[in-house]
Amino acid sequence: MTPLQRLAELGIDVGEPLRPKGSYVGVRCFEHTAWVSGCTGRSADRGPLLGIVGVDLTIEQARAEAARAAVNLLAALESEIGLDQVAAVLHLRGYVRADPNFTDHPAVIDGASQLLTDVFGTAIGRHARTAVGAPSLPGGASVELEAVIGVRSQ
Amino acid sequence: MTPLQRLAELGIDVGEPLRPKGSYVGVRCFEHTAWVSGCTGRSADRGPLLGIVGVDLTIEQARAEAARAAVNLLAALESEIGLDQVAAVLHLRGYVRADPNFTDHPAVIDGASQLLTDVFGTAIGRHARTAVGAPSLPGGASVELEAVIGVRSQ
Amino acid sequence: MTPLQRLAELGIDVGEPLRPKGSYVGVRCFEHTAWVSGCTGRSADRGPLLGIVGVDLTIEQARAEAARAAVNLLAALESEIGLDQVAAVLHLRGYVRADPNFTDHPAVIDGASQLLTDVFGTAIGRHARTAVGAPSLPGGASVELEAVIGVRSQ
Repeated sequence: MTPLQRLAELGIDVGEPLRPKGSYVGVRCFEHTAWVSGCTGRSADRGPLLGIVGVDLTIEQARAEAARAAVNLLAALESEIGLDQVAAVLHLRGYVRADPNFTDHPAVIDGASQLLTDVFGTAIGRHARTAVGAPSLPGGASVELEAVIGVRSQ
Repeated sequence: MTPLQRLAELGIDVGEPLRPKGSYVGVRCFEHTAWVSGCTGRSADRGPLLGIVGVDLTIEQARAEAARAAVNLLAALESEIGLDQVAAVLHLRGYVRADPNFTDHPAVIDGASQLLTDVFGTAIGRHARTAVGAPSLPGGASVELEAVIGVRSQ
Repeated sequence: MTPLQRLAELGIDVGEPLRPKGSYVGVRCFEHTAWVSGCTGRSADRGPLLGIVGVDLTIEQARAEAARAAVNLLAALESEIGLDQVAAVLHLRGYVRADPNFTDHPAVIDGASQLLTDVFGTAIGRHARTAVGAPSLPGGASVELEAVIGVRSQ
Protein backbone atom coordinates (compact mmCIF):
# COMPACT_ATOMS: atom_id res chain seq x y z
CA MET A 1 0.00 0.00 0.00
CA THR A 2 1.33 3.47 -0.81
CA PRO A 3 1.46 6.27 1.77
CA LEU A 4 -1.44 8.02 0.01
CA GLN A 5 -3.48 4.83 0.12
CA ARG A 6 -2.75 4.47 3.84
CA LEU A 7 -3.80 8.08 4.38
CA ALA A 8 -7.05 7.45 2.47
CA GLU A 9 -7.68 4.41 4.69
CA LEU A 10 -7.26 6.65 7.72
CA GLY A 11 -9.72 9.12 6.19
CA ILE A 12 -7.06 11.81 5.80
CA ASP A 13 -6.76 14.03 2.73
CA VAL A 14 -3.44 15.85 2.98
CA GLY A 15 -4.63 18.52 0.54
CA GLU A 16 -2.58 21.45 -0.65
CA PRO A 17 0.45 22.49 1.39
CA LEU A 18 0.03 25.62 3.48
CA ARG A 19 1.82 28.74 2.30
CA PRO A 20 4.81 29.47 4.58
CA LYS A 21 4.26 32.46 6.87
CA GLY A 22 7.54 34.15 6.08
CA SER A 23 10.56 34.29 3.78
CA TYR A 24 11.20 30.57 3.55
CA VAL A 25 10.03 27.46 1.71
CA GLY A 26 8.09 24.49 3.06
CA VAL A 27 10.64 21.85 2.05
CA ARG A 28 14.26 22.13 0.93
CA CYS A 29 15.90 19.11 -0.74
CA PHE A 30 19.61 18.51 -1.16
CA GLU A 31 21.13 15.25 -2.26
CA HIS A 32 19.02 12.58 -0.51
CA THR A 33 17.74 14.66 2.35
CA ALA A 34 14.62 16.83 2.60
CA TRP A 35 14.37 19.46 5.32
CA VAL A 36 10.78 20.23 6.28
CA SER A 37 9.96 23.61 7.81
CA GLY A 38 8.18 24.03 11.12
CA CYS A 39 4.49 23.15 10.87
CA THR A 40 1.67 23.88 13.27
CA GLY A 41 -1.77 22.27 13.11
CA ARG A 42 -3.37 25.19 11.28
CA SER A 43 -5.36 24.63 8.12
CA ALA A 44 -6.18 26.85 5.14
CA ASP A 45 -9.29 28.18 6.85
CA ARG A 46 -8.46 27.87 10.54
CA GLY A 47 -5.55 28.90 12.75
CA PRO A 48 -3.68 26.46 14.97
CA LEU A 49 -5.12 25.22 18.25
CA LEU A 50 -4.24 27.99 20.70
CA GLY A 51 -3.32 27.64 24.33
CA ILE A 52 -0.84 26.25 26.79
CA VAL A 53 -0.75 22.48 27.10
CA GLY A 54 -1.42 21.35 30.65
CA VAL A 55 -3.16 24.63 31.47
CA ASP A 56 -5.64 25.47 28.69
CA LEU A 57 -5.41 22.18 26.80
CA THR A 58 -5.37 18.53 27.77
CA ILE A 59 -2.74 16.09 26.60
CA GLU A 60 -5.35 14.45 24.35
CA GLN A 61 -6.20 17.76 22.68
CA ALA A 62 -2.51 18.48 22.12
CA ARG A 63 -1.87 14.98 20.80
CA ALA A 64 -4.64 15.44 18.21
CA GLU A 65 -3.09 18.79 17.25
CA ALA A 66 0.31 17.10 16.85
CA ALA A 67 -1.34 14.68 14.41
CA ARG A 68 -2.79 17.63 12.44
CA ALA A 69 0.66 19.23 12.32
CA ALA A 70 2.01 15.92 11.00
CA VAL A 71 -0.60 16.03 8.23
CA ASN A 72 0.77 19.45 7.29
CA LEU A 73 4.28 17.98 7.17
CA LEU A 74 2.97 15.26 4.86
CA ALA A 75 1.19 17.79 2.63
CA ALA A 76 4.43 19.73 2.24
CA LEU A 77 6.35 16.55 1.39
CA GLU A 78 3.70 15.26 -1.02
CA SER A 79 3.74 18.56 -2.88
CA GLU A 80 7.52 18.88 -3.04
CA ILE A 81 8.84 15.34 -3.53
CA GLY A 82 5.86 12.97 -3.41
CA LEU A 83 5.29 10.72 -0.41
CA ASP A 84 6.27 7.64 -2.40
CA GLN A 85 9.78 9.11 -2.67
CA VAL A 86 10.28 9.04 1.11
CA ALA A 87 12.96 6.48 1.94
CA ALA A 88 13.14 7.13 5.68
CA VAL A 89 11.76 9.50 8.27
CA LEU A 90 15.02 10.46 9.96
CA HIS A 91 14.22 12.89 12.72
CA LEU A 92 11.10 14.53 14.10
CA ARG A 93 11.36 17.46 16.48
CA GLY A 94 8.29 18.47 18.43
CA TYR A 95 7.83 21.68 20.40
CA VAL A 96 5.04 21.77 22.97
CA ARG A 97 3.87 25.13 24.25
CA ALA A 98 3.64 24.24 27.91
CA ASP A 99 4.02 25.77 31.30
CA PRO A 100 7.16 25.17 33.39
CA ASN A 101 5.64 22.23 35.27
CA PHE A 102 4.59 20.21 32.23
CA THR A 103 6.32 16.83 31.85
CA ASP A 104 4.36 14.83 29.25
CA HIS A 105 5.84 16.18 26.00
CA PRO A 106 6.44 12.65 24.67
CA ALA A 107 2.74 11.74 24.98
CA VAL A 108 1.83 14.84 22.95
CA ILE A 109 4.34 14.28 20.16
CA ASP A 110 3.38 10.60 19.95
CA GLY A 111 0.29 11.85 18.10
CA ALA A 112 2.58 12.81 15.24
CA SER A 113 4.98 9.85 15.53
CA GLN A 114 2.17 7.32 15.41
CA LEU A 115 0.64 8.92 12.33
CA LEU A 116 4.00 8.95 10.52
CA THR A 117 4.61 5.31 11.39
CA ASP A 118 1.07 4.37 10.31
CA VAL A 119 1.44 6.14 6.97
CA PHE A 120 4.91 4.92 6.03
CA GLY A 121 5.05 1.62 7.93
CA THR A 122 7.73 0.82 10.47
CA ALA A 123 10.62 0.23 8.08
CA ILE A 124 10.38 3.70 6.56
CA GLY A 125 8.48 5.57 9.25
CA ARG A 126 10.36 4.80 12.47
CA HIS A 127 12.38 7.85 13.42
CA ALA A 128 14.61 9.51 15.96
CA ARG A 129 12.83 12.24 17.87
CA THR A 130 13.20 15.09 20.29
CA ALA A 131 10.34 16.59 22.27
CA VAL A 132 10.81 19.80 24.21
CA GLY A 133 8.80 22.60 25.75
CA ALA A 134 8.58 26.13 24.39
CA PRO A 135 7.06 29.17 26.11
CA SER A 136 5.61 30.53 22.87
CA LEU A 137 5.21 29.38 19.27
CA PRO A 138 4.28 31.19 16.04
CA GLY A 139 0.69 32.39 15.95
CA GLY A 140 0.08 31.17 19.49
CA ALA A 141 0.21 27.53 18.37
CA SER A 142 0.26 24.85 21.04
CA VAL A 143 2.38 22.40 19.03
CA GLU A 144 4.98 22.80 16.28
CA LEU A 145 6.82 20.05 14.38
CA GLU A 146 9.77 19.90 12.02
CA ALA A 147 11.32 16.89 10.29
CA VAL A 148 14.29 15.65 8.31
CA ILE A 149 13.48 13.06 5.67
CA GLY A 150 15.60 10.66 3.63
CA VAL A 151 14.68 10.65 -0.06
CA ARG A 152 14.98 7.76 -2.52
CA SER A 153 17.67 7.74 -5.16
CA GLN A 154 15.94 8.40 -8.46
CA MET B 1 27.86 38.40 -8.37
CA THR B 2 29.51 36.43 -5.56
CA PRO B 3 28.07 36.32 -2.03
CA LEU B 4 30.91 38.58 -0.81
CA GLN B 5 30.15 41.08 -3.58
CA ARG B 6 26.48 41.06 -2.61
CA LEU B 7 27.45 41.62 1.02
CA ALA B 8 29.67 44.54 0.00
CA GLU B 9 26.74 46.02 -1.95
CA LEU B 10 24.65 45.76 1.22
CA GLY B 11 27.42 47.54 3.14
CA ILE B 12 28.14 44.46 5.26
CA ASP B 13 31.64 43.32 6.17
CA VAL B 14 31.32 39.85 7.68
CA GLY B 15 34.70 40.18 9.36
CA GLU B 16 36.36 37.53 11.47
CA PRO B 17 34.21 34.76 12.94
CA LEU B 18 33.48 35.06 16.64
CA ARG B 19 35.24 32.65 18.94
CA PRO B 20 32.76 30.02 20.23
CA LYS B 21 31.82 30.49 23.88
CA GLY B 22 32.40 26.90 24.90
CA SER B 23 33.92 23.55 23.96
CA TYR B 24 32.69 23.45 20.36
CA VAL B 25 33.57 24.74 16.90
CA GLY B 26 31.73 27.31 14.81
CA VAL B 27 31.20 25.06 11.78
CA ARG B 28 31.54 21.31 11.32
CA CYS B 29 31.68 19.89 7.78
CA PHE B 30 31.03 16.29 6.79
CA GLU B 31 30.59 15.12 3.24
CA HIS B 32 28.53 17.87 1.58
CA THR B 33 26.92 19.30 4.68
CA ALA B 34 28.10 22.06 7.02
CA TRP B 35 26.58 22.37 10.48
CA VAL B 36 26.75 25.91 11.83
CA SER B 37 26.69 26.45 15.59
CA GLY B 38 24.19 28.69 17.33
CA CYS B 39 24.92 32.38 16.71
CA THR B 40 23.58 35.42 18.49
CA GLY B 41 23.91 38.97 17.20
CA ARG B 42 26.93 39.79 19.39
CA SER B 43 30.05 41.27 17.85
CA ALA B 44 33.71 41.22 18.87
CA ASP B 45 33.28 44.33 20.98
CA ARG B 46 29.62 44.21 22.00
CA GLY B 47 27.34 41.61 23.52
CA PRO B 48 24.07 40.52 21.93
CA LEU B 49 20.95 42.69 22.10
CA LEU B 50 19.49 41.84 25.52
CA GLY B 51 15.86 41.61 26.45
CA ILE B 52 12.58 39.84 25.88
CA VAL B 53 10.98 40.38 22.48
CA GLY B 54 7.49 41.82 22.79
CA VAL B 55 8.25 43.15 26.28
CA ASP B 56 11.62 44.95 26.23
CA LEU B 57 12.17 44.91 22.47
CA THR B 58 10.01 45.60 19.43
CA ILE B 59 9.68 43.20 16.53
CA GLU B 60 11.72 45.62 14.39
CA GLN B 61 14.56 45.65 16.92
CA ALA B 62 14.54 41.85 17.09
CA ARG B 63 14.40 41.54 13.31
CA ALA B 64 17.53 43.70 13.00
CA GLU B 65 19.22 41.50 15.63
CA ALA B 66 18.27 38.39 13.64
CA ALA B 67 20.02 39.94 10.64
CA ARG B 68 23.14 40.58 12.76
CA ALA B 69 23.07 36.95 13.93
CA ALA B 70 22.84 35.91 10.26
CA VAL B 71 25.97 37.96 9.55
CA ASN B 72 27.72 35.94 12.27
CA LEU B 73 26.56 32.72 10.57
CA LEU B 74 28.02 34.02 7.32
CA ALA B 75 31.31 34.98 8.98
CA ALA B 76 31.64 31.46 10.37
CA LEU B 77 30.91 29.93 6.96
CA GLU B 78 33.24 32.29 5.09
CA SER B 79 36.06 31.43 7.49
CA GLU B 80 35.51 27.66 7.40
CA ILE B 81 34.45 26.84 3.84
CA GLY B 82 34.18 30.13 1.92
CA LEU B 83 30.78 31.54 0.99
CA ASP B 84 31.33 30.71 -2.68
CA GLN B 85 31.31 27.02 -1.70
CA VAL B 86 27.72 27.19 -0.41
CA ALA B 87 25.51 25.12 -2.70
CA ALA B 88 22.27 25.49 -0.72
CA VAL B 89 21.02 26.93 2.54
CA LEU B 90 19.12 23.90 3.79
CA HIS B 91 17.61 24.78 7.12
CA LEU B 92 17.58 27.81 9.40
CA ARG B 93 16.34 27.54 12.95
CA GLY B 94 15.58 30.70 14.86
CA TYR B 95 14.98 31.00 18.59
CA VAL B 96 13.27 34.14 19.86
CA ARG B 97 13.51 35.01 23.53
CA ALA B 98 9.91 35.97 24.06
CA ASP B 99 7.24 35.98 26.70
CA PRO B 100 4.46 33.36 26.66
CA ASN B 101 2.05 35.62 24.75
CA PHE B 102 4.36 36.42 21.85
CA THR B 103 3.17 35.18 18.43
CA ASP B 104 5.29 36.95 15.78
CA HIS B 105 8.39 34.73 15.71
CA PRO B 106 8.28 34.47 11.90
CA ALA B 107 8.48 38.25 11.48
CA VAL B 108 11.59 38.31 13.67
CA ILE B 109 13.42 35.47 11.92
CA ASP B 110 12.54 36.94 8.51
CA GLY B 111 15.32 39.44 9.24
CA ALA B 112 17.77 36.56 8.88
CA SER B 113 15.97 34.73 6.07
CA GLN B 114 15.82 37.82 3.91
CA LEU B 115 19.51 38.54 4.37
CA LEU B 116 20.46 34.95 3.46
CA THR B 117 18.27 35.06 0.35
CA ASP B 118 19.70 38.47 -0.62
CA VAL B 119 23.27 37.27 -0.24
CA PHE B 120 22.97 33.90 -2.00
CA GLY B 121 20.08 34.61 -4.36
CA THR B 122 16.89 32.56 -4.38
CA ALA B 123 18.26 29.42 -6.05
CA ILE B 124 20.90 28.85 -3.35
CA GLY B 125 19.48 30.90 -0.51
CA ARG B 126 15.86 29.73 -0.16
CA HIS B 127 15.60 27.45 2.84
CA ALA B 128 13.39 25.47 5.15
CA ARG B 129 12.97 27.14 8.52
CA THR B 130 11.67 26.76 12.03
CA ALA B 131 11.00 29.67 14.38
CA VAL B 132 10.22 29.04 18.03
CA GLY B 133 10.20 30.82 21.34
CA ALA B 134 12.71 30.27 24.13
CA PRO B 135 12.52 31.57 27.70
CA SER B 136 16.25 32.24 27.88
CA LEU B 137 19.22 32.19 25.52
CA PRO B 138 23.00 32.26 26.08
CA GLY B 139 24.27 35.55 27.45
CA GLY B 140 20.75 36.93 27.68
CA ALA B 141 20.49 37.18 23.89
CA SER B 142 17.12 38.00 22.38
CA VAL B 143 17.66 35.95 19.18
CA GLU B 144 19.74 32.89 18.34
CA LEU B 145 20.14 31.20 14.95
CA GLU B 146 21.60 27.93 13.69
CA ALA B 147 21.82 26.57 10.16
CA VAL B 148 22.56 23.54 8.05
CA ILE B 149 24.25 24.26 4.73
CA GLY B 150 24.83 22.21 1.59
CA VAL B 151 28.40 22.47 0.31
CA ARG B 152 29.59 22.20 -3.29
CA SER B 153 31.43 19.14 -4.49
CA GLN B 154 35.04 20.17 -4.99
CA MET C 1 42.69 4.00 21.89
CA THR C 2 39.10 3.18 20.98
CA PRO C 3 36.15 5.20 22.31
CA LEU C 4 35.20 2.31 24.60
CA GLN C 5 38.76 2.19 25.97
CA ARG C 6 38.65 5.94 26.61
CA LEU C 7 35.32 5.53 28.38
CA ALA C 8 36.78 2.76 30.53
CA GLU C 9 39.71 5.05 31.41
CA LEU C 10 37.17 7.67 32.51
CA GLY C 11 35.44 5.03 34.65
CA ILE C 12 32.28 5.17 32.52
CA ASP C 13 30.30 2.10 31.51
CA VAL C 14 27.80 3.18 28.88
CA GLY C 15 25.66 0.11 29.52
CA GLU C 16 22.44 -0.73 27.73
CA PRO C 17 20.62 2.05 25.88
CA LEU C 18 17.49 3.35 27.57
CA ARG C 19 14.17 2.40 26.04
CA PRO C 20 12.63 5.43 24.28
CA LYS C 21 9.65 6.90 26.14
CA GLY C 22 7.36 7.06 23.13
CA SER C 23 6.76 5.94 19.56
CA TYR C 24 10.26 6.53 18.25
CA VAL C 25 13.69 4.88 18.10
CA GLY C 26 16.89 5.90 19.86
CA VAL C 27 18.99 6.25 16.70
CA ARG C 28 18.04 6.41 13.01
CA CYS C 29 20.74 5.88 10.39
CA PHE C 30 20.56 6.89 6.75
CA GLU C 31 23.49 6.89 4.37
CA HIS C 32 26.39 8.18 6.49
CA THR C 33 24.42 10.07 9.08
CA ALA C 34 22.96 8.90 12.40
CA TRP C 35 20.23 10.93 14.09
CA VAL C 36 20.20 10.47 17.85
CA SER C 37 16.96 11.08 19.75
CA GLY C 38 16.67 13.47 22.65
CA CYS C 39 18.35 12.10 25.80
CA THR C 40 18.06 13.25 29.37
CA GLY C 41 20.39 12.17 32.16
CA ARG C 42 18.04 9.48 33.48
CA SER C 43 19.26 5.95 34.03
CA ALA C 44 17.52 2.58 34.06
CA ASP C 45 16.76 2.88 37.77
CA ARG C 46 16.58 6.63 38.31
CA GLY C 47 14.78 9.50 36.64
CA PRO C 48 16.57 12.59 35.33
CA LEU C 49 17.82 15.33 37.64
CA LEU C 50 14.73 17.46 38.23
CA GLY C 51 14.57 21.21 38.65
CA ILE C 52 15.20 24.55 37.05
CA VAL C 53 18.83 25.43 36.44
CA GLY C 54 19.79 28.68 38.16
CA VAL C 55 16.91 28.34 40.61
CA ASP C 56 16.84 24.77 42.00
CA LEU C 57 20.15 23.61 40.53
CA THR C 58 23.62 25.08 40.21
CA ILE C 59 25.52 25.27 36.95
CA GLU C 60 27.85 22.55 38.24
CA GLN C 61 24.95 20.20 38.98
CA ALA C 62 23.50 20.83 35.53
CA ARG C 63 26.86 20.36 33.85
CA ALA C 64 27.23 16.94 35.50
CA GLU C 65 23.71 16.09 34.32
CA ALA C 66 24.65 17.12 30.77
CA ALA C 67 27.56 14.68 30.96
CA ARG C 68 25.16 11.91 32.08
CA ALA C 69 22.87 12.73 29.15
CA ALA C 70 25.90 12.47 26.86
CA VAL C 71 26.60 8.99 28.25
CA ASN C 72 23.04 8.07 27.24
CA LEU C 73 23.72 9.39 23.72
CA LEU C 74 26.83 7.22 23.62
CA ALA C 75 24.94 4.16 24.86
CA ALA C 76 22.39 4.61 22.09
CA LEU C 77 25.12 4.97 19.47
CA GLU C 78 27.15 2.02 20.78
CA SER C 79 24.08 -0.18 20.63
CA GLU C 80 22.96 0.91 17.16
CA ILE C 81 26.15 1.45 15.17
CA GLY C 82 29.10 0.88 17.53
CA LEU C 83 31.17 3.81 18.77
CA ASP C 84 34.12 2.76 16.60
CA GLN C 85 31.94 3.52 13.55
CA VAL C 86 31.60 7.19 14.48
CA ALA C 87 33.45 9.28 11.89
CA ALA C 88 32.48 12.71 13.21
CA VAL C 89 30.27 14.27 15.85
CA LEU C 90 28.49 16.81 13.64
CA HIS C 91 26.07 18.73 15.80
CA LEU C 92 25.04 18.69 19.45
CA ARG C 93 21.96 20.55 20.60
CA GLY C 94 21.47 21.13 24.30
CA TYR C 95 18.29 22.30 25.99
CA VAL C 96 18.60 23.71 29.50
CA ARG C 97 15.48 23.98 31.63
CA ALA C 98 16.10 27.44 33.01
CA ASP C 99 14.25 30.48 34.19
CA PRO C 100 14.00 33.59 31.98
CA ASN C 101 17.04 35.25 33.57
CA PHE C 102 19.47 32.38 33.05
CA THR C 103 22.42 33.14 30.75
CA ASP C 104 25.00 30.34 31.25
CA HIS C 105 23.62 27.65 28.91
CA PRO C 106 27.04 27.15 27.27
CA ALA C 107 28.68 26.31 30.61
CA VAL C 108 26.04 23.64 31.22
CA ILE C 109 26.26 22.00 27.81
CA ASP C 110 30.07 22.05 27.98
CA GLY C 111 29.66 19.08 30.35
CA ALA C 112 28.48 17.07 27.35
CA SER C 113 30.81 18.61 24.78
CA GLN C 114 33.88 17.93 26.85
CA LEU C 115 32.91 14.30 27.39
CA LEU C 116 32.30 13.77 23.66
CA THR C 117 35.65 15.33 22.80
CA ASP C 118 37.41 13.27 25.48
CA VAL C 119 35.87 10.03 24.22
CA PHE C 120 36.39 10.54 20.48
CA GLY C 121 39.41 12.84 20.48
CA THR C 122 39.41 16.25 18.84
CA ALA C 123 39.56 15.11 15.21
CA ILE C 124 36.34 13.09 15.47
CA GLY C 125 34.72 14.64 18.51
CA ARG C 126 34.82 18.41 17.85
CA HIS C 127 31.33 19.51 16.87
CA ALA C 128 29.02 22.37 16.06
CA ARG C 129 26.60 23.12 18.87
CA THR C 130 23.55 25.05 19.91
CA ALA C 131 22.55 25.67 23.52
CA VAL C 132 19.16 27.15 24.34
CA GLY C 133 16.76 27.47 27.22
CA ALA C 134 13.47 25.58 27.53
CA PRO C 135 10.72 26.19 30.07
CA SER C 136 9.96 22.49 30.46
CA LEU C 137 11.46 19.20 29.30
CA PRO C 138 10.16 15.61 29.28
CA GLY C 139 9.78 14.09 32.73
CA GLY C 140 10.80 17.36 34.37
CA ALA C 141 14.40 16.91 33.22
CA SER C 142 16.79 19.81 33.70
CA VAL C 143 18.88 19.04 30.59
CA GLU C 144 18.15 17.33 27.27
CA LEU C 145 20.58 16.63 24.43
CA GLU C 146 20.28 15.48 20.83
CA ALA C 147 23.00 14.87 18.25
CA VAL C 148 23.74 14.25 14.60
CA ILE C 149 26.64 11.91 13.92
CA GLY C 150 28.67 11.13 10.82
CA VAL C 151 29.18 7.39 10.31
CA ARG C 152 32.13 5.65 8.63
CA SER C 153 31.78 4.13 5.19
CA GLN C 154 31.79 0.37 5.69
